[in-house]
Amino acid sequence: MNGTIAEHMQKHLDNLTKPRGSLGRLEDLVIKFAALQERVPPRISKKAVYVFAADHGITAEGVSLYPKEVTYQMLLNILSGGAAINALAGGAGTDGASSWDLVAVDAGVAADTTAEDAAVLKLAEVLPPGRRFLNKKIGAGTANFLHQTAMTEIELEEALAAGESLAEDAEKQGYELVAIGDMGIGNTSTAAALLVASGFPLDEVVDRGTGIDSATLNHKRDVIAQAVKKHRPFASPRDILQKVGGYDLAMMAGLILGLRNRKIGCMIDGFPVTSAAYMAYSMDKTVTDYLFAGHLSKVKGHRPVLATMGLEPILDLGMHLGEGTGAVLAGYILELAVKTSNSMASFESAGVSDSSHEEEKY
Amino acid sequence: MNGTIAEHMQKHLDNLTKPRGSLGRLEDLVIKFAALQERVPPRISKKAVYVFAADHGITAEGVSLYPKEVTYQMLLNILSGGAAINALAGGAGTDGASSWDLVAVDAGVAADTTAEDAAVLKLAEVLPPGRRFLNKKIGAGTANFLHQTAMTEIELEEALAAGESLAEDAEKQGYELVAIGDMGIGNTSTAAALLVASGFPLDEVVDRGTGIDSATLNHKRDVIAQAVKKHRPFASPRDILQKVGGYDLAMMAGLILGLRNRKIGCMIDGFPVTSAAYMAYSMDKTVTDYLFAGHLSKVKGHRPVLATMGLEPILDLGMHLGEGTGAVLAGYILELAVKTSNSMASFESAGVSDSSHEEEKY
Repeated sequence: MNGTIAEHMQKHLDNLTKPRGSLGRLEDLVIKFAALQERVPPRISKKAVYVFAADHGITAEGVSLYPKEVTYQMLLNILSGGAAINALAGGAGTDGASSWDLVAVDAGVAADTTAEDAAVLKLAEVLPPGRRFLNKKIGAGTANFLHQTAMTEIELEEALAAGESLAEDAEKQGYELVAIGDMGIGNTSTAAALLVASGFPLDEVVDRGTGIDSATLNHKRDVIAQAVKKHRPFASPRDILQKVGGYDLAMMAGLILGLRNRKIGCMIDGFPVTSAAYMAYSMDKTVTDYLFAGHLSKVKGHRPVLATMGLEPILDLGMHLGEGTGAVLAGYILELAVKTSNSMASFESAGVSDSSHEEEKY
Repeated sequence: MNGTIAEHMQKHLDNLTKPRGSLGRLEDLVIKFAALQERVPPRISKKAVYVFAADHGITAEGVSLYPKEVTYQMLLNILSGGAAINALAGGAGTDGASSWDLVAVDAGVAADTTAEDAAVLKLAEVLPPGRRFLNKKIGAGTANFLHQTAMTEIELEEALAAGESLAEDAEKQGYELVAIGDMGIGNTSTAAALLVASGFPLDEVVDRGTGIDSATLNHKRDVIAQAVKKHRPFASPRDILQKVGGYDLAMMAGLILGLRNRKIGCMIDGFPVTSAAYMAYSMDKTVTDYLFAGHLSKVKGHRPVLATMGLEPILDLGMHLGEGTGAVLAGYILELAVKTSNSMASFESAGVSDSSHEEEKY
């Protein structure tokens, strides 16, 4: 973190008409955002959530209770405006103002979105302003990594490069805050495999969840353990991503690295997105200066991964939906924190008596 | 809580295109809001934060590090648009859309806001749309309750009735969600006195705070203990409010009771507002069906009071600023939760395959 900017930002905050430190974590968020933007006070005038849809070959092992067709169906739902992320990204007003751009990315859905008659393409032609579809499909779902590598080396490079191209897109669009969401049946199994291959204990990152019975949990744990064992040893984070990753998660890692290089802040969501962030972090530890943890998901493995990266979640609301829902909620908090630093009066300008004491409640 | 409506709302949520229960506490919030509005799904189309400014005679005992003039100065700052609550209530967009109405209430500021030349009246004449000033002044600050009762019986009735008139105002304005904030030097001491008089242990509700030295803390604790002892026994919650209360806190209690009678949801803020909510709760236990705890303040005494009322804070961001800042932040979360219940597609309408299993992450 840029210490000089952080100090400058802290001084700016201390001059505003409030007891010092009284905005709590909002002040920490603004300071971090100022440091990454190298601007005092910082600014968020345009923001977007990128939701990555992809299929995962590992679903053939029966690790998920939803059929894999749901990935494509939910991509259509997002483009049609009916998903949770549409409601939450649409702004905090009933007029739908002050919303996020919503960019649905096909990173590797099994259905053929490139065919001329595909429903997704028809929907993509009539999207309302601020809703976009980007076809970055690497393949029709990854291979089943219990039996073979999830993707080829070339596919991995393509996925990482596609992520980088999305960071370029974000810069071109003028997004100053990017949230990342996931939509893919089986992606929690892939996420867990990435983390186990990276050294996290199996029991820490494979979740029981609610409603899943013990037999299914044991099966999921066994599948992940076997798959990781089969592919050992891993030469590098790239090697892990290629062998037991997903097109979506690899692309997210590429995006995170690309945002870092462009000094754009990034709000991550739940367990799958955080596992992708962890892979980016494994390649470049400095990404955490640009990352904000939107929320603590109900998925058990989320907390230890965030903790390893030194990220403290902003919200803790027991959510576990994905799609970037936790990230955009927290993004409003960050945006409002940034807003206070831009629009509040100083003690001097408002003619309010200051106290020489720090952090005292008036 | 209306159980039939709650059940109906739960079914509505379970049909939406997301794993059951995956919106976590957002679902609990929507269900509670539906039950209080008796509407499935519920609605928040207009909302306001009422910020109560008043002075407290107990400040003569040196319990606060800010001079009491700050109450009036901050009221001016709020009306001028320079306070933290202005930034946070102004909407999550940089265009200022989707904002809260901000109603600054003079419940009993020591400065004379009724004089023709008062700065506050000049400002009140040029307020932008959505920012309002209401003069409900009961007196020029309460008396010092270490030596006499904080207010007369007539003043207490006036304050409660003024609160009721604000609930009437909220209904007339069409506010479907009301947040309550505080601005008054010394109000945490008054809040602590109300709670100690109500039976909370002194050490649980008198906070050390950060930056306050041990001598000042001991002094504050002694002042509150002595004051409460002097006024014992207390015949009723009203008696407590009259003897060791504040014009602002009594008026908030009246507002909370009035909102409950009009089935309007209410988001409370930090320690002082929560103490006022506790007094309303002491008079009518059913108010909690209409109350939402915006956040957990850094002020130590906040948690036990919320817990006693069975309210779980939505946010925990280490804030301790007051003015309704935590309440409006949490209000956006509630509004967005309500929005999902209105705008999301159902499994059937979106053609998405459902799972028969509950609460499973896809």
